Amino acid sequence: MQTNDKQQNQTASNQIAAHAIPDIADNKITLGPLPASEKVYVTSPNRDDVRVPMRKVSLTDGTHVTLYDTSGPYTDNTAQIDVHKGLSTETRSAWIDERADTEFYEGRDMKPIDNGVTDEAQGQRFYNPLLQRQPRRAKAGRNVSQMHYARQGLITPEMEYVALRENQMREALANEFTTEERQARLKGNDFGAAIPDVITPEFVRDEIARGRAIIPANINHPELEPMIIGRNFLVKINANIGNSALTSSIEEEVEKMVWSTRWGGDTIMDLSTGKYIHSTRDYIVRNSPAPVGTVPIYQALEKVNGVAEDLTWEVFRDTLIEQAEQGVDYFTIHAGIRLAHIPLTADRVTGIVSRGGSIMAKWCIYHHKESFLYEHFEDICEIMKAYDVSFSLGDGLRPGSLADANDAAQFAELETLGELTQIAWKHDVQVMIEGPGHVPMHMIKANMDKQLECCDEAPFYTLGPLTTDIAPGYDHITSGIGAAMIGWYGCAMLCYVTPKEHLGLPNRDDVKTGIITYKLAAHAADVAKGHPGARYRDDLLSKARFEFRWQDQFNLSLDPETAQSFHDETLPKDSAKVAHFCSMCGPKFCSMKISQEVRDYSKDEIEQGMQQKSEEFKAQGAQVYVPVEEDA
Amino acid sequence: MQTNDKQQNQTASNQIAAHAIPDIADNKITLGPLPASEKVYVTSPNRDDVRVPMRKVSLTDGTHVTLYDTSGPYTDNTAQIDVHKGLSTETRSAWIDERADTEFYEGRDMKPIDNGVTDEAQGQRFYNPLLQRQPRRAKAGRNVSQMHYARQGLITPEMEYVALRENQMREALANEFTTEERQARLKGNDFGAAIPDVITPEFVRDEIARGRAIIPANINHPELEPMIIGRNFLVKINANIGNSALTSSIEEEVEKMVWSTRWGGDTIMDLSTGKYIHSTRDYIVRNSPAPVGTVPIYQALEKVNGVAEDLTWEVFRDTLIEQAEQGVDYFTIHAGIRLAHIPLTADRVTGIVSRGGSIMAKWCIYHHKESFLYEHFEDICEIMKAYDVSFSLGDGLRPGSLADANDAAQFAELETLGELTQIAWKHDVQVMIEGPGHVPMHMIKANMDKQLECCDEAPFYTLGPLTTDIAPGYDHITSGIGAAMIGWYGCAMLCYVTPKEHLGLPNRDDVKTGIITYKLAAHAADVAKGHPGARYRDDLLSKARFEFRWQDQFNLSLDPETAQSFHDETLPKDSAKVAHFCSMCGPKFCSMKISQEVRDYSKDEIEQGMQQKSEEFKAQGAQVYVPVEEDA
Repeated sequence: MQTNDKQQNQTASNQIAAHAIPDIADNKITLGPLPASEKVYVTSPNRDDVRVPMRKVSLTDGTHVTLYDTSGPYTDNTAQIDVHKGLSTETRSAWIDERADTEFYEGRDMKPIDNGVTDEAQGQRFYNPLLQRQPRRAKAGRNVSQMHYARQGLITPEMEYVALRENQMREALANEFTTEERQARLKGNDFGAAIPDVITPEFVRDEIARGRAIIPANINHPELEPMIIGRNFLVKINANIGNSALTSSIEEEVEKMVWSTRWGGDTIMDLSTGKYIHSTRDYIVRNSPAPVGTVPIYQALEKVNGVAEDLTWEVFRDTLIEQAEQGVDYFTIHAGIRLAHIPLTADRVTGIVSRGGSIMAKWCIYHHKESFLYEHFEDICEIMKAYDVSFSLGDGLRPGSLADANDAAQFAELETLGELTQIAWKHDVQVMIEGPGHVPMHMIKANMDKQLECCDEAPFYTLGPLTTDIAPGYDHITSGIGAAMIGWYGCAMLCYVTPKEHLGLPNRDDVKTGIITYKLAAHAADVAKGHPGARYRDDLLSKARFEFRWQDQFNLSLDPETAQSFHDETLPKDSAKVAHFCSMCGPKFCSMKISQEVRDYSKDEIEQGMQQKSEEFKAQGAQVYVPVEEDA
Repeated sequence: MQTNDKQQNQTASNQIAAHAIPDIADNKITLGPLPASEKVYVTSPNRDDVRVPMRKVSLTDGTHVTLYDTSGPYTDNTAQIDVHKGLSTETRSAWIDERADTEFYEGRDMKPIDNGVTDEAQGQRFYNPLLQRQPRRAKAGRNVSQMHYARQGLITPEMEYVALRENQMREALANEFTTEERQARLKGNDFGAAIPDVITPEFVRDEIARGRAIIPANINHPELEPMIIGRNFLVKINANIGNSALTSSIEEEVEKMVWSTRWGGDTIMDLSTGKYIHSTRDYIVRNSPAPVGTVPIYQALEKVNGVAEDLTWEVFRDTLIEQAEQGVDYFTIHAGIRLAHIPLTADRVTGIVSRGGSIMAKWCIYHHKESFLYEHFEDICEIMKAYDVSFSLGDGLRPGSLADANDAAQFAELETLGELTQIAWKHDVQVMIEGPGHVPMHMIKANMDKQLECCDEAPFYTLGPLTTDIAPGYDHITSGIGAAMIGWYGCAMLCYVTPKEHLGLPNRDDVKTGIITYKLAAHAADVAKGHPGARYRDDLLSKARFEFRWQDQFNLSLDPETAQSFHDETLPKDSAKVAHFCSMCGPKFCSMKISQEVRDYSKDEIEQGMQQKSEEFKAQGAQVYVPVEEDA
């Protein structure tokens, strides 16, 4: 069937002139590895077409370390990138073929309204035939979800893949830091998680079968590099991108996706609204190595000219099919808002702040009945399992302020999401649960515990939470605090918040700031949980810092470019890169330098007694300060 | 005695031409109030010379709110500022006079070596006679510490002042948010703190007598606006400034002090090293409305040409007197490092990372004996109580990496700090305890609990802690996470960390970023502790946000300028400032707008039943989207 696609693309390339393709010069897409890094692929011992990309960082002491790599082919110098054709890496196609439970079919024709317009030519404006793929779906009566396979006892290549990926070859790491004393002292607190020392494919399968983890992987997204979301795995982060009626453009969104995954985004949500969102999504999905999530109700609302009460099950269903055929990996669906919940928001300080939530609330009030999302939930499950789209059950009643945190409305919806989780699991459909929002620190644990209880440990996926309301412009930080804490308590994925939250749409720099903030929050959580694959990176960086291996300190950090540029602002000279001092204290006066001396003498002391050493030290004149030049 | 000073200044101003005064044009100093803010003074009902400055923010709905104000006269349009003469507000002079337990005396002559030089003319280079004040000290046999007065049962004007300041006139606040349900739901967790609903002068006195809080207030710093540090008060933050041998200048440091307090710095530490630190300190102390802390061992080391082992008690003692006469409010003193502790650091990943700690460790090894700080601790107490300088007992063995957190060396020193606290308290000398450093989230509580236990609830003052080691360039955030948590657990003051931590010296923007990050962390802690004076600001801002009062949202935030500039990036039009939508969703599609409708209908529902309303709603055509123009 691959040939079919190829033929289709051939024909398409003849037509392409007829279409106005968004102007994306390759130089607008960020390519190439991070400093001192190269892409390596680790092959599964069980099957050689499971090759997991990792980032190999070379250190100046001759050693190297491999880091988790979300950046896809864009950081692989050997990869051919053409965003107008989409990623050529389609490893998963073979895996899906060999399961022999799917069929290619004609699929749905794109309509102008999919791009939010009525005129045919306008609708085609950003339509790129080279990005079209013939869709697959499950054969009649089949269920192609990873959860279904797991429950059948099957270990899929996707499961093999994520097992290797989670382990990060950490068995190869030097154990110089893992003394018994240190392991005992630093032992984490996992609050009842069950994180094994080594992630095996069997463990991955069991967690997915149990519903405690998901692999969002639509069969129509073969370009995907599979990843897993669950409390017993590394904490993941999501980056929201997408244009609104007011701003941004297709090329910016594609670059935002590449940029987000470059810095560590594990999944991407395309929250585009307004015009040309179908074609924008073609570009994002076909070029994304990370799972892509959407909120289909946004597009459905565009199709009814933004009039919430005009939404129907038919329009929504058609939109689900449209996006499932494009390859969207998870859908945010606000099926948890019930008629009876709505009055519970009446006395809130900030009412309903979720877009999807307010749309569905309005629909319910207008029609005075339960939403079509709730009424048709099992019909939605049928669609999800035909493409393996995962649920991200939306928290339409999440608190928009500290004052509304953990209130009756929020928890009533959460209980409904728990009921819906059981229904989805009955269909072997993968589920994660979306969470708040604005929650003061002392109420975060209760939030996490309530979710684990109501949703039977289905992965929690939270926005922050923000721990204060008073810092617009810095909400990546107010929320990073809550994110680190809830990640520690058991949250599986953290949706990033950028400095523009509440104020505007993030630009490129905001996206990077949001990503790095959430990477460090997720890492802080992994360390606190005692994840065996977490702390070694801190130890390596700290050792480099103590040994004045500046370049290694930069290259092991989450953002080598920023770390180096900050250093160079005060000490630009190359010699400073190997200097045994830093700009905080200056050359004559360095605590790290002194404490290296202290260490040597302390060691001797223990062996030979102190008095004698002290005499020797004096005899030598005990010079501890080494001028820069000697190091350079 | 004031006249003495004045005469001295007269003479001085004649000499001034003879001295090269650092070039600080007033326009280099940031002056004037924040947006929509004015300085107001709240007078004590008990004495009318206790006037507490607060920041009155006017809101567009005609109401106003007063916020805690650390910015001093620089944000008062009526104030005369001349940094070459120092602040003219010397309210405290009268308070100190009336206690009649101090005497003016000639004091110590400044020596060239105080400025790190040997040549007389060079030493005078940045010396400004207009900044000199005749020093005071306790009369023979007297103790002028706030702790001493408190234990005598005296309520000083300083105590009156901080009581008013901590209350922030919150009794005047509208209680619209404090429904019983909300109060019950949001009740904080204070982990055993004892925070009263209203702060009385008696409560302040009791806490100081108990050693659980301090008012750092040197009698030679009359320009000071008193503030209190303790677990039962608002969590405070400190900003480190100071030049190093490599960079910065006096004018930059003065502006950094003004800039830090403008954005909310409660105290300032001058960590200058290298040349002209005496004259730099003249400028900082004479112009600072906030308590100023220093690490005297840094200057002492300069006086012995940076050779740690040449340090003596005499040089150190002379430096303490020098700085006490200048008006430094608290001294970081690393008296907790004992000979036996040093070998405990030998196997650390990052050894000793505290400058003061490594200097003293080296001294101990070289001389093979306990440090003069430890041996002369009671002599130091005698100096402290003669000027009311508070101890900030330094944690010289704080961990410099996650791997070294909460280890034997750190806790051994903490236990010694506990012993020293008891000795200081025997002398009625005020004490706070410095803390780490680098600590993973799951070990932060143990750290706080250990400090409370060892140091009998003396205020804890921590640097961060940083919760990961892998984010140089973003360590304000990795540490902001730990700071918010330890503040919640009981830490009294948080020492800020800037984005330049580990990499270089902070510039003006870095200082602001560090301050705002720590203000929001401290506020998150106050909210989580259930401090009665904390959450109202969040509620007011969230209400403004929900009502689309954009300008109020900006003006109630920690950084109005940044919030507004971020908003204007996407929606610059003035009409957008009152628009009932924001750039996240655009005009057609706004959840806040929708949920206001939902709220109205929900309320009616409860009263009139839903079906009927639903019909009416349809009859009206139910238009919820209001175009910008109608709002503008």
